Amino acid sequence: MVSWKNLDELNSYKELMNLKDEVDLVKAMSGDSGVDRVANYSVEMSSGLTFNYAAKQVDDKVIDVLCDLADEAQLSEKFKELYEGAVINTGEKRLVLHQLCRGQLGNDVVADDVNKREFYKKQQDRIAEFAAKVHEGKIVNEKGEKFTTVVQIGIGGSDLGPRAMYLALENWAKKNGTFKMEAKFISNVDPDDASAVLNSVDVAHTIFILVSKSGTTLETLTNESFVKDALKSQGLDASKHMIAVTSETSPLAGSSDYLDAFFMDDYIGGRYSSTSAVGGAVLSLAFGSEVFARFLNGAAAEDKKATEKDLRSNPAMLDALIGVYERNVLGYESTAVLPYSQALSRFPAHLQQLDMESNGKSVNRDGEPVNYKTGPVIFGEPGTNGQHSFYQLLHQGKSIIPLQFVGFKKSQIENDVTIQDSTSQQKLIANVVAQVMAFACGKADDNKNKNFEGGRPSSIIIGEQLTPEALGALLAHFENKVMFQGFAWNINSFDQEGVQLGKTLAKKVLAHETDGALKAYSELFGI
Amino acid sequence: MVSWKNLDELNSYKELMNLKDEVDLVKAMSGDSGVDRVANYSVEMSSGLTFNYAAKQVDDKVIDVLCDLADEAQLSEKFKELYEGAVINTGEKRLVLHQLCRGQLGNDVVADDVNKREFYKKQQDRIAEFAAKVHEGKIVNEKGEKFTTVVQIGIGGSDLGPRAMYLALENWAKKNGTFKMEAKFISNVDPDDASAVLNSVDVAHTIFILVSKSGTTLETLTNESFVKDALKSQGLDASKHMIAVTSETSPLAGSSDYLDAFFMDDYIGGRYSSTSAVGGAVLSLAFGSEVFARFLNGAAAEDKKATEKDLRSNPAMLDALIGVYERNVLGYESTAVLPYSQALSRFPAHLQQLDMESNGKSVNRDGEPVNYKTGPVIFGEPGTNGQHSFYQLLHQGKSIIPLQFVGFKKSQIENDVTIQDSTSQQKLIANVVAQVMAFACGKADDNKNKNFEGGRPSSIIIGEQLTPEALGALLAHFENKVMFQGFAWNINSFDQEGVQLGKTLAKKVLAHETDGALKAYSELFGI
Repeated sequence: MVSWKNLDELNSYKELMNLKDEVDLVKAMSGDSGVDRVANYSVEMSSGLTFNYAAKQVDDKVIDVLCDLADEAQLSEKFKELYEGAVINTGEKRLVLHQLCRGQLGNDVVADDVNKREFYKKQQDRIAEFAAKVHEGKIVNEKGEKFTTVVQIGIGGSDLGPRAMYLALENWAKKNGTFKMEAKFISNVDPDDASAVLNSVDVAHTIFILVSKSGTTLETLTNESFVKDALKSQGLDASKHMIAVTSETSPLAGSSDYLDAFFMDDYIGGRYSSTSAVGGAVLSLAFGSEVFARFLNGAAAEDKKATEKDLRSNPAMLDALIGVYERNVLGYESTAVLPYSQALSRFPAHLQQLDMESNGKSVNRDGEPVNYKTGPVIFGEPGTNGQHSFYQLLHQGKSIIPLQFVGFKKSQIENDVTIQDSTSQQKLIANVVAQVMAFACGKADDNKNKNFEGGRPSSIIIGEQLTPEALGALLAHFENKVMFQGFAWNINSFDQEGVQLGKTLAKKVLAHETDGALKAYSELFGI
Repeated sequence: MVSWKNLDELNSYKELMNLKDEVDLVKAMSGDSGVDRVANYSVEMSSGLTFNYAAKQVDDKVIDVLCDLADEAQLSEKFKELYEGAVINTGEKRLVLHQLCRGQLGNDVVADDVNKREFYKKQQDRIAEFAAKVHEGKIVNEKGEKFTTVVQIGIGGSDLGPRAMYLALENWAKKNGTFKMEAKFISNVDPDDASAVLNSVDVAHTIFILVSKSGTTLETLTNESFVKDALKSQGLDASKHMIAVTSETSPLAGSSDYLDAFFMDDYIGGRYSSTSAVGGAVLSLAFGSEVFARFLNGAAAEDKKATEKDLRSNPAMLDALIGVYERNVLGYESTAVLPYSQALSRFPAHLQQLDMESNGKSVNRDGEPVNYKTGPVIFGEPGTNGQHSFYQLLHQGKSIIPLQFVGFKKSQIENDVTIQDSTSQQKLIANVVAQVMAFACGKADDNKNKNFEGGRPSSIIIGEQLTPEALGALLAHFENKVMFQGFAWNINSFDQEGVQLGKTLAKKVLAHETDGALKAYSELFGI
């Protein structure tokens, strides 16, 4: 039986608090010491990836205490409880089973009289079959023509993750001959979002995926009616153009309004649903189910890595606890995610949701306020673009922002030009390694305006190429990192009560049931 | 003559530091007090916009001290110095003249023997003439066919601002019959960026804009050669497909490699260049020069507002000083920008550069370290999308993040559906006002997991519709806000020395002139 304790109840945490000024990063990363760190502070991930934390403000002593913390907080045991079906989501009294979408890590999980691994696998198989029929022209539009475009209608986890994954693999699929159909996404309740997307596609050859677990998400149902109007206005039967991804108990399941329905359940939170039917339908339609299966394999392999008991061999747990050290001991407020890959342009936006919605909490899993900082602000843009944007503050601003770099040896399209004796890919790589060192060591200058203090910590995930496997591994790494941090902070990373109040008040505004300042604001907008 | 003093040398700042616990936001925004604040804490902007700061943690007493601070720091006088041509960019010894692109606020500025307002105006006129010829089919491709697409090649300020502005007006232009050509953007040195964009356009009917002030930006020149290769591979003459936006002294100016060249100069920083030829060329080609002129008019009108001496009538200065109060007195580390408008999807990314690159500094304008916090981290995504993503942390996280909302009464396309008795636009508006109040007042609940403490400050800019004028005003508001904060912090908001070290080290990596950890990292990537 595991024991759930607040972080500040742990002896190892008290020990950690004494290690605030342990590492002088400038010194540590200079000379031979730096070379040693780059070689040693490195963990193999799956799928050709490596997590290197040489430029983090840690040393063997800090890591030793983090090992104690991992043991004392029973992080491995808690993960095992999770993937074997304990009620980890205490607030909503739910299991947390997204890892089961990609593999079986422990004993069978049976819930609601169903073997959940089999359930998720069955949905994947059904999606694969459906996608194949669409690609082969066995499922066609009313004129018997092939569908050429897929549009996902969903918001939050039904949008950000699948969209980021689609963009991450679009060029790879085109290069590797597995690109099947273009995907677009409608998310915002702003009517201009649906209008613009619908104006940009050939509706008659488009298949729409309505994604809502409950079948009651206001934004998504509103956007569905936009889509239905667009189909009807062209004399088309909406039910021949739409599928649903939802829970078996939702009003959408089994409705004749849809060609078919594929299922997720309450044990997969929106932000963890990219590897479920939520990501599966759109990615299988866009790239083929084989590509989606490879993506799942990458995630499964990385989940396996996260089961390692030894902290130094467990990249997600190590990344998580270094983050706890940075947040709670060093006092840093935010983390920047900086992938040197244009294909990962929306990956930071997905991680922003994943991390901030999971760990932006002030109460522990028993609902008691905690006395320490929890999840940081997450933001980021791809490099080298970010270098020409907000890196100024990262290098010379008054606050230290820990950095999470990602880079790949090869580009996806592998089309390149040589300028000034180097390819673009080489320039991209040269920039990311240069940045790691510029942040870590800085450079003294008598002109204080040109002076770089350094001491700004970063880690880097290095990959061979952004393949479906590598993407799956990257996604799982961060999902597991967030989970381990939630365990360390003793919070529930799987509910999101903080999104409710706004929804309730918005309904009051629409029903004109307001008073006070809320009414006054509404009047300013003329509603 | 103005006097440049550090913030902590000002008497009014010391007074401000005593007002840390001045406002209980929950109380202030409840009942009649809240209604009064919504009515009174509001400043008219230009172009149909209003800046409402009722939900900020300020009251009359705080604002009175901020008025003193504005006077003591001579913010108005410093702005006047700037727009009349003083060397405000001390680090690079340059004038700062982006406001002159849209209007003449004071006396003529003559530099390098040129009247600068006339110079910028002349470039606009030349661009307008060029764009008209493209639209009328007088400037055509080698087969005598019209150009249908424009692709901007640039990075940082040559990318983020123009891209955000293009996306902001794309649907408006389509709706209002002024849409001329689709625009795309190539920015990243990642070779997949250029490859993917080039694969997505009809190169033979595309006109490319190469944007680099110096004519030496590595990313941009590399991407230019990608474009030239793509043109050549189709047997096309690159010089018939490209124009340059650059400084008159750059190697690109007057080169026969380009159809034409349009000029900016050293007095307009990249992140302030959306209203110069950098934004002008692509926006005039995409939407027509009349739309670009309307955008400039909005910016000019808002600049005029920023010249108001009375803080309570100057929205940019007020926004700026409330931000200083939040950063330096209340100790908040970041600010979220949350436009309830899908068209503003990349506006937060532009503000991220604008603000963090301008004010992410640790030395004052004389190069001396300052002892107080300067620019915050800026991040954001459009609402309602963000509500389903990172708002959890904003509502219930351990750190308070000030919020900057933006919302409009009308959508751009004005196509809508009614579901549950309200349109999507009404739902969008209902959500933004609901969020302001949910953050400000929270809601007590015995279940601490469902408890909202409130006390989370926000301001909101309310507009009629996102027109070219409103967009120009919005842009100028934030440019001027950042400028006033820079004046208050006594830093130089117009240089970016922090981006240099990374560039230098990247060159060393490419030249294999590295040792130590930098060499070790390079080897991990195989370069």
